[in-house]
Amino acid sequence: MNVENFGASERLLVNAAYMRQGAQGRRAHELRLRALLEQGKCPEDGWDESTIELFLHELAIMDSNNFLGNCGVGEREGRVASGLVARRHYRLIHGIGRSGDISAVQPKAAGSSLLNKLTNSIVLDILKLAGVRTVTSCFVVPMATGMSLTLCFLTLRHKRPKAKYIIWPRIDQKSCFKSMITAAGLGFEPVVIENVLEGDELRTDIKAVEAKIQDLGAENVLCVHSTTSCFAPRVPERLEELAVICANYDIPHIVNNAYGVQSSKCMHLIQQGARVGRIDAFIQSLDKNFMVPVGGAVIAGFDDSFIQDISKMYPDNSVYRSSLDVLITLLSLGESGYRQLLKERKEMFSYLSSQLKKLAEVYNERLLVTPHNPISLAMTLENLDKHSDMTVTQLGSMLFTRQVSGARVVPLGASQTVNNYTFKGFMSHTNNYPCAYLNAASAIGMKKQDVDLFLKRLEKCMKNFRKEKSCGKDVPEIDNCIKDTSVGETEDYKLQS
Amino acid sequence: MNVENFGASERLLVNAAYMRQGAQGRRAHELRLRALLEQGKCPEDGWDESTIELFLHELAIMDSNNFLGNCGVGEREGRVASGLVARRHYRLIHGIGRSGDISAVQPKAAGSSLLNKLTNSIVLDILKLAGVRTVTSCFVVPMATGMSLTLCFLTLRHKRPKAKYIIWPRIDQKSCFKSMITAAGLGFEPVVIENVLEGDELRTDIKAVEAKIQDLGAENVLCVHSTTSCFAPRVPERLEELAVICANYDIPHIVNNAYGVQSSKCMHLIQQGARVGRIDAFIQSLDKNFMVPVGGAVIAGFDDSFIQDISKMYPDNSVYRSSLDVLITLLSLGESGYRQLLKERKEMFSYLSSQLKKLAEVYNERLLVTPHNPISLAMTLENLDKHSDMTVTQLGSMLFTRQVSGARVVPLGASQTVNNYTFKGFMSHTNNYPCAYLNAASAIGMKKQDVDLFLKRLEKCMKNFRKEKSCGKDVPEIDNCIKDTSVGETEDYKLQS
Amino acid sequence: MNVENFGASERLLVNAAYMRQGAQGRRAHELRLRALLEQGKCPEDGWDESTIELFLHELAIMDSNNFLGNCGVGEREGRVASGLVARRHYRLIHGIGRSGDISAVQPKAAGSSLLNKLTNSIVLDILKLAGVRTVTSCFVVPMATGMSLTLCFLTLRHKRPKAKYIIWPRIDQKSCFKSMITAAGLGFEPVVIENVLEGDELRTDIKAVEAKIQDLGAENVLCVHSTTSCFAPRVPERLEELAVICANYDIPHIVNNAYGVQSSKCMHLIQQGARVGRIDAFIQSLDKNFMVPVGGAVIAGFDDSFIQDISKMYPDNSVYRSSLDVLITLLSLGESGYRQLLKERKEMFSYLSSQLKKLAEVYNERLLVTPHNPISLAMTLENLDKHSDMTVTQLGSMLFTRQVSGARVVPLGASQTVNNYTFKGFMSHTNNYPCAYLNAASAIGMKKQDVDLFLKRLEKCMKNFRKEKSCGKDVPEIDNCIKDTSVGETEDYKLQS
Amino acid sequence: MNVENFGASERLLVNAAYMRQGAQGRRAHELRLRALLEQGKCPEDGWDESTIELFLHELAIMDSNNFLGNCGVGEREGRVASGLVARRHYRLIHGIGRSGDISAVQPKAAGSSLLNKLTNSIVLDILKLAGVRTVTSCFVVPMATGMSLTLCFLTLRHKRPKAKYIIWPRIDQKSCFKSMITAAGLGFEPVVIENVLEGDELRTDIKAVEAKIQDLGAENVLCVHSTTSCFAPRVPERLEELAVICANYDIPHIVNNAYGVQSSKCMHLIQQGARVGRIDAFIQSLDKNFMVPVGGAVIAGFDDSFIQDISKMYPDNSVYRSSLDVLITLLSLGESGYRQLLKERKEMFSYLSSQLKKLAEVYNERLLVTPHNPISLAMTLENLDKHSDMTVTQLGSMLFTRQVSGARVVPLGASQTVNNYTFKGFMSHTNNYPCAYLNAASAIGMKKQDVDLFLKRLEKCMKNFRKEKSCGKDVPEIDNCIKDTSVGETEDYKLQS
Repeated sequence: MNVENFGASERLLVNAAYMRQGAQGRRAHELRLRALLEQGKCPEDGWDESTIELFLHELAIMDSNNFLGNCGVGEREGRVASGLVARRHYRLIHGIGRSGDISAVQPKAAGSSLLNKLTNSIVLDILKLAGVRTVTSCFVVPMATGMSLTLCFLTLRHKRPKAKYIIWPRIDQKSCFKSMITAAGLGFEPVVIENVLEGDELRTDIKAVEAKIQDLGAENVLCVHSTTSCFAPRVPERLEELAVICANYDIPHIVNNAYGVQSSKCMHLIQQGARVGRIDAFIQSLDKNFMVPVGGAVIAGFDDSFIQDISKMYPDNSVYRSSLDVLITLLSLGESGYRQLLKERKEMFSYLSSQLKKLAEVYNERLLVTPHNPISLAMTLENLDKHSDMTVTQLGSMLFTRQVSGARVVPLGASQTVNNYTFKGFMSHTNNYPCAYLNAASAIGMKKQDVDLFLKRLEKCMKNFRKEKSCGKDVPEIDNCIKDTSVGETEDYKLQS
Repeated sequence: MNVENFGASERLLVNAAYMRQGAQGRRAHELRLRALLEQGKCPEDGWDESTIELFLHELAIMDSNNFLGNCGVGEREGRVASGLVARRHYRLIHGIGRSGDISAVQPKAAGSSLLNKLTNSIVLDILKLAGVRTVTSCFVVPMATGMSLTLCFLTLRHKRPKAKYIIWPRIDQKSCFKSMITAAGLGFEPVVIENVLEGDELRTDIKAVEAKIQDLGAENVLCVHSTTSCFAPRVPERLEELAVICANYDIPHIVNNAYGVQSSKCMHLIQQGARVGRIDAFIQSLDKNFMVPVGGAVIAGFDDSFIQDISKMYPDNSVYRSSLDVLITLLSLGESGYRQLLKERKEMFSYLSSQLKKLAEVYNERLLVTPHNPISLAMTLENLDKHSDMTVTQLGSMLFTRQVSGARVVPLGASQTVNNYTFKGFMSHTNNYPCAYLNAASAIGMKKQDVDLFLKRLEKCMKNFRKEKSCGKDVPEIDNCIKDTSVGETEDYKLQS
Repeated sequence: MNVENFGASERLLVNAAYMRQGAQGRRAHELRLRALLEQGKCPEDGWDESTIELFLHELAIMDSNNFLGNCGVGEREGRVASGLVARRHYRLIHGIGRSGDISAVQPKAAGSSLLNKLTNSIVLDILKLAGVRTVTSCFVVPMATGMSLTLCFLTLRHKRPKAKYIIWPRIDQKSCFKSMITAAGLGFEPVVIENVLEGDELRTDIKAVEAKIQDLGAENVLCVHSTTSCFAPRVPERLEELAVICANYDIPHIVNNAYGVQSSKCMHLIQQGARVGRIDAFIQSLDKNFMVPVGGAVIAGFDDSFIQDISKMYPDNSVYRSSLDVLITLLSLGESGYRQLLKERKEMFSYLSSQLKKLAEVYNERLLVTPHNPISLAMTLENLDKHSDMTVTQLGSMLFTRQVSGARVVPLGASQTVNNYTFKGFMSHTNNYPCAYLNAASAIGMKKQDVDLFLKRLEKCMKNFRKEKSCGKDVPEIDNCIKDTSVGETEDYKLQS
Repeated sequence: MNVENFGASERLLVNAAYMRQGAQGRRAHELRLRALLEQGKCPEDGWDESTIELFLHELAIMDSNNFLGNCGVGEREGRVASGLVARRHYRLIHGIGRSGDISAVQPKAAGSSLLNKLTNSIVLDILKLAGVRTVTSCFVVPMATGMSLTLCFLTLRHKRPKAKYIIWPRIDQKSCFKSMITAAGLGFEPVVIENVLEGDELRTDIKAVEAKIQDLGAENVLCVHSTTSCFAPRVPERLEELAVICANYDIPHIVNNAYGVQSSKCMHLIQQGARVGRIDAFIQSLDKNFMVPVGGAVIAGFDDSFIQDISKMYPDNSVYRSSLDVLITLLSLGESGYRQLLKERKEMFSYLSSQLKKLAEVYNERLLVTPHNPISLAMTLENLDKHSDMTVTQLGSMLFTRQVSGARVVPLGASQTVNNYTFKGFMSHTNNYPCAYLNAASAIGMKKQDVDLFLKRLEKCMKNFRKEKSCGKDVPEIDNCIKDTSVGETEDYKLQS
């Protein structure tokens, strides 16, 4: 309501004092909004739902599809057939950007465009807060990390048309590999660098990386593609050293920081890498770091023009979809809320770690010592069944049917071929890890209740196994639970990354 | 509520007859749902919002993030920080598919996976209803048509590793060209076939296509990339003849059917092409054909295994986002509702056509004769100002500030360079179209009120111009409306496809 | 967003022209709102949901419970425990009015108070549109008509402390009678005036009313309590003549116009009554006339101070609940939408009437001739079963189990005692109506589909009866449908007014 | 989804194991619901929004207005014109009960009726939890406490037709008095018993009550109307002693327990009163005790048939409106959540008490010693301005404009006439309280932040006054804030109970 409308309201209510009190209430909302628009930063304290919805309503009525007097004679007019759909998108129906240029402003959608600018600005603010203080530019894309990495590689190709090798310290996640392979027929060639075992940890083989670069010729290397967040016992890359090598050899460096925003260690590695060496872009998943639905990523970097080049590669204009969720979420959390989530995650990591350690000892297993991995933990499964990996797999099924989600069992000696490339010891990031193990992670949003339930159910399963083994029996309940546990089926849940 | 719960309710209500009446009411909903699940077809009559929401609620509680007893110890657990976000996605937070394999079922999300399967099944049903009766397979992707086309080309590359040419009858839309260019540095080479002028229409130069194939060698051609829906005076491709050539030379054929589902003519062309010749896949935008928010497409074809190959190229799992909107929309419309929309669109096309013709005659212009284009119309702007294209551009600005969206003015002789390729006469699909013109389209969901408002405002603008010209004056109001109408600014709205 | 915020937005978007377009879009919403606030009338054209919700949001942030800086130290602070509840009330949690004075403004809730004022103003406008052009004052209460009538009688009591008789032309609806009886132990005494049979119609016995007034002494009569909308074959009161009598004898006159707003005839009667005689207040149900949920009424009249006196009798402050629904509804319909509903209702009445007539004739029954009743119709059930009312009752049950709601069968000779007063021939408004019959009504919002389904199902039931009778059998299916059709049960559905 | 639908889903998903996992997820929801329906008790742990909404959806489809095949031919068919309205009521449009009998089941609305039964059952459970362990019956009404009290008095009148006196220990709240006065013209006569001052507390004058009963004759007394929750320095009635007197003299006893459910002390008084003496019904506000919007009450008692008699006096059927909010709220809180709220309220009371005490001492005021009042506190305003009550009033205005809501200043010697009855010292519950004071309360849902903000703002105001006084100036800012602070205006905020 503007000034005239307040005037009209006063006359209707016949009580100026109360109306003025109301107007003052409204003013406070306007001021909040103004601070947001002027600073483009995530507010310190989260907004209530009411303020957020009002804001989204205000943005929506600035889009042409919501103009009271609009008439549309094009083929893309933001018309919506279902009221349910209109409402769930707050009537923000037009995308932002133009067909073929995501970074342009969409003339039909000032509100949606503003929303998108704000989101990128706020996310940048949060990346700084989370530890990469010198990041200068970022943008949200409605694709997961895999596709986002591909976008980066394609952009680099324009700059280094002759380079075709991507140096890639091994990380056993299909989508990471596929991000290079999707484009492989077109000329990229991933060069896998095996990790080295240090204690229990699998770490970057820096010497092998450098040797391979020299071997291939730096000018033929498109980029180094490194990883921070990963399943233990693999640990985040030796990022500083990689970044220094990239700087020395003048090779681009793309970091897959999939769920690393939630960890100050991962973010610190990126900050340090950029400070002492070279990092061109780092990519993170929206859902894993900001607790929004699956399907978005943030591409960020230290050079505005490179980040903008990447954004120009993206041919569509549906970006706002992911932006909307992340904007709502960050406004409702505020910086303080996000900081609190980071803190709780860290505490939960310690708790999970200590509890899992205790349980492991009871069953003659041990927690792998992986101090460099700040998120994921691994417990050995050496004594579960000495003679068969089947048992390890069964443990996974049992946990699944007991509604434990996200736990991952890694048997020995699995082998998998992805796009003609065969990985020995697949899932364990190395050809021959010494033992089978079980992964659990403390990710953002995890509750103490999750940990407790997990440990209770895990213990029950372990106990069952011990009992059964001592009787020389199979574990029968699996058959009742998952009748069709073919090998393929079992694979399914194991790879549920 | 299941049987036991009805029993308990009866005891509480102390009136079995009324409760039974209530149970019968519920049963009707269950039967609806059953028909949907068993047949996998769009219901004939649309569902009310209540049934749709109940169904989505039911799906959501089958996803692990909504299990009452779930505990999550992974890094991707469908956790959501904001209630607003959870609600607007009906708590369907997990994607479907697995990281790296969209066609796999997501173990954590039976409900979301079911939703996705159903959506593809219903969309297939609607594609048949709309005219492509023999289509056998399709899937929804959360990307617009441009990126979807790229996905098809990448898939073909795996099958024809040495082929690099894409035969492309010219269509002046940036995203179409970019769909090939994004990957261009990697080896694709678009081969532009200029259109021929027949009367007012710009049509496919079939002979030139065939000659170019012979010239390049069929084995070097990745595919023919043709287009159905387009701005007049260009008209849909001579699709049957193209399909026959593709069959004869054994060349894949990808059809950009962007907003063609809404036109029985476009769909008929595809059906005929597939019958007499070769079409490998046809791609259509979700928003333009199904009245949902921007950002999704359907990839469809006649060979299940090829369509599945394309789906495997897609590395992410956020598909359900687009599925959800299109599922809600189609369930709420029903087949009859969608048929009705198609019928109304056709009627509105006739109405727009006849009204625009009348208006054109009053101002000494004429409606271009483009009988092969079933959606878009063009009116000449020859007499607006004989001496300057500036005026044509101003007309565009005036319409924009008068809240006419989607109208497009095409001046003479514009030239544009897209990724190093220069198009003369850009926007007009040919180097030298005889005159400037204005486009308007009758797209699905257009109302008579849109047409009437458009014509009224257009007439007012035309009148203004005539008046101003007779006084030898500039048109002053533009300056008031858009003060910063630099050339770049003006470009903006013109290209708003 | 205010001016400063638009400025900040422009800077963020780096495109003043588009932002200005957006601001213009917003301005249109503001102007709508302003017209509403200044004129206090229902807009001619309905508002879309987006505008309505934005408006409600704006009102809500003017209530103290939504002040960002509010601190509450009272016992009633508009705190809400559940987000679901907050949202469904648009965060309008405080009532309006003060404890003990509904017409006062609630200092904690400027927004809610404004909402209430506006609603009363708009409803007044609609009452005029519907036919009572000279109505001057009205207010919405969160009680149904029965309780609202009681409120009127209590107010009159203060003015006529010695009068205890309420003259009441008989109408067989429990809540009407109860509106006087609730307070009966306290001194009111309803005086029932039996109706006279004219043709098929039951009409007001004007002479009996006047005779009774003379008999009791006008000064002892609290008021005449008359009725417009009613089930055929009773017809609306001879309201003009009653009003003249009231004027002549200086007796207050309260009209129960339950669902009469939807009929121009009922409204015309009130308008005429007020013009030529005396009407103090007329009461109408919100749900039956404005298609909102059950539980509200409008008390209206021609003398501001009397209507205000009534409002002061109402001790609570929860009014806004009913106001909110009726405000949303009328804003979304607009005057034109409401007018359209009235027109459709009239057409549907003709249709129902003609179709029911045809069906009656097929089964040797007839439609009662009740031209003065503009809403309700009655079809005789004379030949259904000559010997038993049981059959009539069974017909009712059969219709109920076939999901026909609102049809009412009236058997001969039912008798009912309400608060010690025994009505012979209860439900038929007279002691001995010549025949049993079935009622159906054409009320606002009825669709052609309702009529068609009703007639189809009714015909099926009638056919069944004829068949069964010819075999000398009972109608068995009832037993299957409602096993416990005790008399009480059967009563249930019959009295479902 | 029922069993057949799960079967169909399995076939569609081609993965029985995942689907079974989904079905198991659903089953958990069904079990929750079953426990609720079978036990009719508030669940120990609160339900999430998803479960609640699913439950409401399920109830809604059992109401005839949501039957897919329903046809309505009555005048009240639950039709709704606005989708916004339908949704905010979860499509529960029909009321419960029948016109004229709220305790009957509404045949058209099995779902709504079930909802209502459940609500009453759950609220009863919570009343027990809160301390009245032997309560046997209660029901929710969509009216505030005032109107609910009137309903009780009217019911008693039927049982004691000759009794007209209501014995009422004075409590200065308009709606309490009005609950007797609304019906006063009809024969009730409130007999005000002045309170006695004990220390700072105002307590029931038991002897005066008994004397008055003897004086009037027990048979002429309709009932004793007592109060628990109230503003300090008045304290809850000596309820046990009153109940004993009522038992001895065979006089009904109605307790106004307005916001007493939140205090174990108030509830304990009722429990004890019922144990040792007589309490017929006790009435509590929904909004003040259960944190729902204004406008509902619970009428409860120890004799089913009396409570049912009261329910039969209520002529309307809109009950579900209040039921819906309270049901949602209690399901979302669960017993544990409600218990937690009670606990926090108590803690906040101690905190407010100690902080206010400190502040009082700084300004030479003191916290009144009112140990019997568990909710409300009072701080003297003796030194604010020795010579004028104006200052006290100004303090109120200042707090109001500073967004402190619910604080109440009580000046000396105010006098007010309500319905011809003049109260000296109005607002202070006695003719001559020794000093002016300020009230603040710790009510359910209050946060520490409320207390802190309140004290900060209060301190600022106090400081201002001290400063101004020492300069001999008026407090100028008031004039800026509320220009029209006429006496009437000022009254407004003071009485904002």
